[in-house]
Amino acid sequence: MQDNDVTILGAGLVGSLLATLLAERGITVDVYEKRKDPESRPVEQGRSINLALSHRGIRSLQLAGVYDQVQKHLIPMKGRMMHDVKGNLSFQSYGREDQHINSVSRAGLNYTLIEHARAQGVNFHFDSFCQGVNLEKTTCYFEGETVRSNVLIGSDGAFSVLRQAMQRTERFNLEQYYIPHGYKELTLHPQDGDFALEPNYLHIWPRGNFMLIALPNPDKSFTCTLFFPFEGDLSFQSIQTEEGVLRFFEQYFPDVLPLMPNVAKEFIANPTSSLVTIKTSPWHRNNSLLIGDASHAIVPFYGQGMNAGFEDCRLLIEWGEKFNFDWKKLLPHFSTHRKRDADAISDLAMKNFVEMRDKVADERFLKIKKFEARLQQHYPDTWLPLYTMVTFSDIPYAEAKSLGELQAKLMAELPDDFDPETHPMEGVIARFNALKQGAQ
Amino acid sequence: MQDNDVTILGAGLVGSLLATLLAERGITVDVYEKRKDPESRPVEQGRSINLALSHRGIRSLQLAGVYDQVQKHLIPMKGRMMHDVKGNLSFQSYGREDQHINSVSRAGLNYTLIEHARAQGVNFHFDSFCQGVNLEKTTCYFEGETVRSNVLIGSDGAFSVLRQAMQRTERFNLEQYYIPHGYKELTLHPQDGDFALEPNYLHIWPRGNFMLIALPNPDKSFTCTLFFPFEGDLSFQSIQTEEGVLRFFEQYFPDVLPLMPNVAKEFIANPTSSLVTIKTSPWHRNNSLLIGDASHAIVPFYGQGMNAGFEDCRLLIEWGEKFNFDWKKLLPHFSTHRKRDADAISDLAMKNFVEMRDKVADERFLKIKKFEARLQQHYPDTWLPLYTMVTFSDIPYAEAKSLGELQAKLMAELPDDFDPETHPMEGVIARFNALKQGAQ
Repeated sequence: MQDNDVTILGAGLVGSLLATLLAERGITVDVYEKRKDPESRPVEQGRSINLALSHRGIRSLQLAGVYDQVQKHLIPMKGRMMHDVKGNLSFQSYGREDQHINSVSRAGLNYTLIEHARAQGVNFHFDSFCQGVNLEKTTCYFEGETVRSNVLIGSDGAFSVLRQAMQRTERFNLEQYYIPHGYKELTLHPQDGDFALEPNYLHIWPRGNFMLIALPNPDKSFTCTLFFPFEGDLSFQSIQTEEGVLRFFEQYFPDVLPLMPNVAKEFIANPTSSLVTIKTSPWHRNNSLLIGDASHAIVPFYGQGMNAGFEDCRLLIEWGEKFNFDWKKLLPHFSTHRKRDADAISDLAMKNFVEMRDKVADERFLKIKKFEARLQQHYPDTWLPLYTMVTFSDIPYAEAKSLGELQAKLMAELPDDFDPETHPMEGVIARFNALKQGAQ
Repeated sequence: MQDNDVTILGAGLVGSLLATLLAERGITVDVYEKRKDPESRPVEQGRSINLALSHRGIRSLQLAGVYDQVQKHLIPMKGRMMHDVKGNLSFQSYGREDQHINSVSRAGLNYTLIEHARAQGVNFHFDSFCQGVNLEKTTCYFEGETVRSNVLIGSDGAFSVLRQAMQRTERFNLEQYYIPHGYKELTLHPQDGDFALEPNYLHIWPRGNFMLIALPNPDKSFTCTLFFPFEGDLSFQSIQTEEGVLRFFEQYFPDVLPLMPNVAKEFIANPTSSLVTIKTSPWHRNNSLLIGDASHAIVPFYGQGMNAGFEDCRLLIEWGEKFNFDWKKLLPHFSTHRKRDADAISDLAMKNFVEMRDKVADERFLKIKKFEARLQQHYPDTWLPLYTMVTFSDIPYAEAKSLGELQAKLMAELPDDFDPETHPMEGVIARFNALKQGAQ
């Protein structure tokens, strides 16, 4: 039997960042991962989903001293570039001129984080699939080995083995909800050695009930992701032939089709993946804790899954220092205090799907965005648009969500024909301040 | 390997009733149950929760031809008898004079249902714990035996083994929520050979955040159940000594304390149980189906858990006959069409907890109940109070719930000082009819 101080299950993004942060504070950390050591096989480039790294994630990477290494692989995205069915483009900025989110390869970032953790003395155990957990004894079972730990942290993702063990204990709450949409990744190769579309944007083809998006990769390709219903008249189920794929793209994405000569073959060959929301409580039992997707997997539509997981790590460390890493106090504190923020970003992410696939093409929606940008410019201490609070600030997600609800209420009151460039702002700001007071 | 036609997991109330209904239609049924054959050990009397059998359950028992046998063990309860802290009683009828619910022993009813199923040729396999299920092959694994079936039905309760297998399949939705309250059963023994309280009522001691209830047993005892928070200032956690129990009962239940000489010892010795809500979808995979608590466990506060499970059985049979027991059509039909009713009764049951422990002592609530009884008396085809629709009718739960919401809206509009005996009814009925039209 091996005896560990802190054991982390899962060497994904959250597990390897957390390992670094703990090791940097003199704590001995062992990380167990079912996959092979990424050193022993080439990192897949541009195939796995690229992710959108923003402020919360960056702040945690800075805390771990690894941001400089990560930064050089980032591709900034200043805003959304919408493509309508006729191929017309319209641009919608994410925030101020100097604000952007960043496309990053999951595999590349994961590799950097593992290497950095190793350099801080973290012990990685790859090829180690956890077959079971005893929560009373804080032991994990691997093929041929039992590992006992003072603290066990599950950063083992949406299908967490640690969570499965917790689920068998008394009074464990769980919600596991699959949305009716799945996703499929497709490649948009470089054209004549350069990006086939403007690289510094998140491209969206909003089509009502479904959408295609594209994020740039360092090799000048884009990874396109089609979010599409599993079942129904127009769905993954209804498109089963290469000819069907071509007809579908001709009708809905005519501007991108010429840039994707292999789309029909890829569509048939590539897997269709599902999208799940997981909510749990509590996040801890005895000496074990769930973190990241293991406790709060969310849909990807706010680009916050990874950022929320990284913020989990920072908060666990900050609260850990406050409690002198007295885990008996730290685990329940984290479990209790982080939960409402995780619930909030989960709900926001679900809502943003409707916004991305439908509303971004809506005239009133765009007018409100414009008006909000004006409000922010004139009242930067008072009015931060919801997207800005979530993406470019540290405001707790739950607080951002409730402020966003007040803002939405005020925006809903604007007359149909309001002009975002001239509509008076003072009254809106005064009402917002009054509503905030009332909400406290 | 044994080859079965229909295999049912769980010989509880729902499993044994469903087995009867199928066997009566010429279908060969094998039921596997982890407990011992109830014949081989005496049925515990008056200890397990007694349940409230009402119209939906009775209708299913009648369909199975077993109601006559059950009926003689029932104790009718005409309404709620509320006990305030001073020991004052007030009565609130459940419905019309001729309407009542029925206290019945779970163990006794289960035994009757198993015996009846056996008489219809159902094969029971007791002491058979299902260790796993292969949904692709429709096989179950028991110690030393593999059972293959054409159809597999899991009536194995809130912690269903079949559901655990489904949970590992793609896109299975699950919500498992434990309320903050637990419950503890306590015995109120007969006094001088007779019931210590009026027997034909469901007794309630509503105390705001918690409550005690009592249901009569055929041996003239009552089973009392305390629904009480697990944690907090006044909670199971805060009461750990016999002295503490006595102080608690003296303060909150002074009228019942003299009738329960052993309450302190019982309170410490008896287990504290938790209360869970389970929602799932879909209820079927391939040739397997969840039914009853396995697919929709609910809290007990509407007295509908068993009745809903029995109604599941009736509907599965009725739809089965419609589809000529073509299971490929029947399972998805049942899974799709029963789900919204299960969700509705789940939500109603949760809401009724607040009503029972808090509102039943509220003056306005009692006035509205009185007014609704008057509405029902004068407009019996138009106005059925929600409790009546749920308890004394076959109206689908989802429909009852939405009608109840319209009614609640109208009742909320009544002025504070309205007189239930004289307030005009015509306007309320007219608005109700208009709202119903709008809701369609």
